[in-house]
Amino acid sequence: MTNPILVEVTRNLTVESLHRGAVAVVDGDGKTLFALGDVTSPAYTRSSLKPIQALPLVESGAADAFGLSEAELALACASHSGEMMHTAPVQAWLTRLGLSESDLACGPQTPRYEPAAVALAAAGERPCRLHNNCSGKHAGFLTLAKHLGVPTQGYQRLDHPVQQAVLAAVERLSGETNLAWGIDGCAAPNFALPLTAFARALAQLAAGKTAGGMRLVKAMMAHPELVGGTGRFCTRAMQAMEGRAAVKVGAEGVYAAMLPGTGLGVAIKIDDGAVRGAEVAVAVVLEKLGVLAAEKGLATHPILNTAGESVGEVRPSQELRAITIG
Amino acid sequence: MTNPILVEVTRNLTVESLHRGAVAVVDGDGKTLFALGDVTSPAYTRSSLKPIQALPLVESGAADAFGLSEAELALACASHSGEMMHTAPVQAWLTRLGLSESDLACGPQTPRYEPAAVALAAAGERPCRLHNNCSGKHAGFLTLAKHLGVPTQGYQRLDHPVQQAVLAAVERLSGETNLAWGIDGCAAPNFALPLTAFARALAQLAAGKTAGGMRLVKAMMAHPELVGGTGRFCTRAMQAMEGRAAVKVGAEGVYAAMLPGTGLGVAIKIDDGAVRGAEVAVAVVLEKLGVLAAEKGLATHPILNTAGESVGEVRPSQELRAITIG
Repeated sequence: MTNPILVEVTRNLTVESLHRGAVAVVDGDGKTLFALGDVTSPAYTRSSLKPIQALPLVESGAADAFGLSEAELALACASHSGEMMHTAPVQAWLTRLGLSESDLACGPQTPRYEPAAVALAAAGERPCRLHNNCSGKHAGFLTLAKHLGVPTQGYQRLDHPVQQAVLAAVERLSGETNLAWGIDGCAAPNFALPLTAFARALAQLAAGKTAGGMRLVKAMMAHPELVGGTGRFCTRAMQAMEGRAAVKVGAEGVYAAMLPGTGLGVAIKIDDGAVRGAEVAVAVVLEKLGVLAAEKGLATHPILNTAGESVGEVRPSQELRAITIG
Repeated sequence: MTNPILVEVTRNLTVESLHRGAVAVVDGDGKTLFALGDVTSPAYTRSSLKPIQALPLVESGAADAFGLSEAELALACASHSGEMMHTAPVQAWLTRLGLSESDLACGPQTPRYEPAAVALAAAGERPCRLHNNCSGKHAGFLTLAKHLGVPTQGYQRLDHPVQQAVLAAVERLSGETNLAWGIDGCAAPNFALPLTAFARALAQLAAGKTAGGMRLVKAMMAHPELVGGTGRFCTRAMQAMEGRAAVKVGAEGVYAAMLPGTGLGVAIKIDDGAVRGAEVAVAVVLEKLGVLAAEKGLATHPILNTAGESVGEVRPSQELRAITIG
């Protein structure tokens, strides 16, 4: 099937580009409240899966055994911008585990927050693995490996007990098995799920069906700046919603949302992988679900040129604006 | 109409994202040799228009009056990476005009070539307007303003004689009038054209129907590294084709190609604006047209993760692989 146009990108008065995609909203009982587009074909969940990838860390008792703070749990679910507020606590966490940056399997990555990248270069330093947007997730994996008493080396491999625990959590919450998988940008396995199954898994956390899940949702909502970073959409959206939902972007146009008030899970995939499209789409869905005020202006993003002028916008399509949920 | 899928993005064994788009190939007589997808709706031409935006610079006599080198003509058609090999000659060019960086209307932009950005930061310097990928185009505009004897100030406004000359060239070569327009990333006007009309305009240059046009095509092919930069697709493609075609990327998934051997123009637009999609699509079209050897491997791009592993690829769809042209 051809997915509907969810988002359009304008320049002056003309639509320049568009983003097709699909949306699923599922409740804590697994009931699909809303579906638009193809919600049955498997789509990689990418970093939107992080709250579920962090679940074994909490459910196993590892988080408590190592005294993880709420901020550290938020970092375990983060795709951070490599700012000092992210890298310093991940480094301290690794030190507490008796480990160091070199134990992270993710590669070095230039901080997404440009002033952090400039500061690094100005100090004559190079980005390291701590700056990788996934370093908190990997610190969580290492914590689980320590707790399970298994070798930390190779923790990113699918056959390692840490990733097997993650896979078991994904399968249990989504109700899917025989998942397609691939290697993510950070070298850890990632799994593909139909959007309804992914939303179902997210709803399990949002509806409190897993004790550990709600702890992660609350940690994310309590530390929006750690889950993303300065100016990032996840951060701005969670700040705007003030504890009404946790949201998590994924590469290639994926977005996840968990609404503890109603126990709903939301999963979005933009066909072409554009994050800008997923941001607008999730904002509209959160507005429709009554947890994000339209006045916050997060559903339409201005496009600025290098001279600072607003020359167009990324905005919801007519079809997306017209949806009703539930 | 819904455009066909031209490009797919895989991760391990699964397609993760896809790019729809349209392609037009037109000859020097204005005959459409090949069309796939919607080639009749106007699409912004973005930086793929630069060879045509530079045409008045040559046709007016300004380029000769100011003794522009072939390298400077290539820079006038460039979206460069802000490397020293780009910024130094643009600065020297401005100095020769009796102007400076502050006369450029484009805003400052961080060099796209990361080592150049790191070197700037390490030196405690900030990106300036010379680093803007369009600074060569703007130096060309300023040269034309000087030659026309009109104020350089405001040269980027649509009603300025420089932009009116550009618009006249676009209309003359494309055969279209009443063009939709918007402000480009560099603050200059940009125009929307149906893909067939854009390809027709490009073919006018490639077929030698305008004396100035062939000079620009040759300048681009003679200086691939100035038109893009280290590692850039335009640069690699023109190096691989060794004078058989000039190519030019545009923001939001646009690609232009000009083939002097056959006098053909090629115009591509990816619906969602993804440059990676346009790169793969133009490579396939150039292969089909016999000017790019498949062995160069430019039609499929590996996706590397932060650990340096190849985890997927950007590749032509079955439909794109199956096209025949002419």
